[in-house]
Amino acid sequence: MIAAVMQEVSTRLSVRQVPDPVPIRKSEVIVRLRAAALNHRDLWIQQGLYAGIKTPVILGSDGAGRLGRRDVLINPSINWSSGAKHPPHPKKYKILGLPDDGTLAEYVRVPRQNVYPIPRHLSMEEAAALPLAGLTAYRVLFSRCKLTARDRVLINGIGGGVALMAFQYAVATGAETWVTSSSPAKIKKAIQLGAAGGIRYTEAEWDKKLTTRAGLFDVIIDSAAGKGFGRLVKIANYGARIGIYGGTTGPIEGLIPQIVFWKQLNILGSTMGNAREFARMLDFVSRHKIKPVIDKVYPLKQVNRALKRMQSGKQFGKIVIRIED
Amino acid sequence: MIAAVMQEVSTRLSVRQVPDPVPIRKSEVIVRLRAAALNHRDLWIQQGLYAGIKTPVILGSDGAGRLGRRDVLINPSINWSSGAKHPPHPKKYKILGLPDDGTLAEYVRVPRQNVYPIPRHLSMEEAAALPLAGLTAYRVLFSRCKLTARDRVLINGIGGGVALMAFQYAVATGAETWVTSSSPAKIKKAIQLGAAGGIRYTEAEWDKKLTTRAGLFDVIIDSAAGKGFGRLVKIANYGARIGIYGGTTGPIEGLIPQIVFWKQLNILGSTMGNAREFARMLDFVSRHKIKPVIDKVYPLKQVNRALKRMQSGKQFGKIVIRIED
Repeated sequence: MIAAVMQEVSTRLSVRQVPDPVPIRKSEVIVRLRAAALNHRDLWIQQGLYAGIKTPVILGSDGAGRLGRRDVLINPSINWSSGAKHPPHPKKYKILGLPDDGTLAEYVRVPRQNVYPIPRHLSMEEAAALPLAGLTAYRVLFSRCKLTARDRVLINGIGGGVALMAFQYAVATGAETWVTSSSPAKIKKAIQLGAAGGIRYTEAEWDKKLTTRAGLFDVIIDSAAGKGFGRLVKIANYGARIGIYGGTTGPIEGLIPQIVFWKQLNILGSTMGNAREFARMLDFVSRHKIKPVIDKVYPLKQVNRALKRMQSGKQFGKIVIRIED
Repeated sequence: MIAAVMQEVSTRLSVRQVPDPVPIRKSEVIVRLRAAALNHRDLWIQQGLYAGIKTPVILGSDGAGRLGRRDVLINPSINWSSGAKHPPHPKKYKILGLPDDGTLAEYVRVPRQNVYPIPRHLSMEEAAALPLAGLTAYRVLFSRCKLTARDRVLINGIGGGVALMAFQYAVATGAETWVTSSSPAKIKKAIQLGAAGGIRYTEAEWDKKLTTRAGLFDVIIDSAAGKGFGRLVKIANYGARIGIYGGTTGPIEGLIPQIVFWKQLNILGSTMGNAREFARMLDFVSRHKIKPVIDKVYPLKQVNRALKRMQSGKQFGKIVIRIED
């Protein structure tokens, strides 16, 4: 088959012929992929910024395609069983696309229980855009932050896959949802998709300006962390839940504990999700007819161009890889 | 009556004759105090390190005494009603002893609903040692961190009132409970009271040494915050709950978000508690016959000496003030 192989870290992926995968265990199946999608994880692995890298490896956590006569998508969260509050021991827990070969290929081997029917309202490319971001967003927003329609929500940094999915879920729930971004164009797009409003986090005192307009926030979803995190607790309401699923700007600095305890805040780490959350996410997406926002679609042979697009940070939505016959 | 009055910040309390309090609202009663206890709050107010200071004021949040023919203690958490997840608007929520006059006096005016019978196994002085620390510890440990007997617990910094109460509750619950302190003598005392063990947080790599002995922790109770907080997440187990009720070493710095989300951690701010939590705390203390650890008892006229003892940080347990006839 054709696959995008990472031969070693910090090099371009090599799109080339490799042997087709075969099931190793009876519980495994081979999915014929039609579309895949990129995640920041792929970029970090390529840049050598991820734990447990082994090469060569076929990257890619998100994929949709055919299993027999069924259109299917893949839950990339492997061995995190239904209902468990956290993943099993790190050595047992795996995300598809490292250490096991991933979805940037014509075929992928996965546990049968990680394969789900595609929600009917989604195309193959939309389905491929859903799994990792859709699961991560579902867990952080609903399982962890217990979002309700009465909450005022802030999605801090709109544009990435998880942030956009969390945003779409919050809007679908009926919650008043605000966004931040460095880009006025992204804020505008979010407002078109149902945001109550947004503000550039590059503006001086954006936190004060935002609460003047919106009030305090009951749920805040963040993947930046860093020095800016201290502002998030300031604009949080009493009893607010702040979900963290990333840390792109580094360690949290200058977080004032008195605000955390006086406001009875909940700072909740979350990443990926369990099998039950994946199934519930698919139900939710089907019920609300949510379509993942797709930034751009590239053919597999242009995967390096697609990774470059992700690295630029200019995307609004998922970067999808079409896998042709 | 005789009372310990703070005439202005950063001066010694003045123990002198003041007018007896009288009920202002029908819902209020006057308790004849027999004992009071100090909290760090009193010290911070005296040092001017607290929001909303007004003078003159009688300090003191903890008290026990007589109401008619009943022996009673006082819940210092005023207007935080049963079951509410967080206190009402800051302007409505009050802690006894600022802005309203507190318990370092012969009489105090309090809402009738904040007065409770003293658990039978407690002396007047033990009862006075219980309310603020006992409530804060109950909420952070049970309501917020959902402690169970299967959890391994770390009380970070043993010796203060809340830390010791949380420690005693955890031991009573049957949880394996460890402590840290800068003082070997305090660690030894904690082991005598049921700790599985302890370590000095002044030792190099105390976190690694501790987990080598104990394993990872499911519940961590902290009031230090600061630069050391980053170590607490490293020794936290997957899905751990870290309760913060103080911030004596300043803002949290260097907190690695990747640990927070990979381990699916819960960082939970908590202070004081609601009326239902206070009642449940009294039940728990009665059922397990828990007696607050008393460091030392001073007569009211030596209240400044008592505050100095608190400032020294040498105490192990509550500093109690006896109020004589």
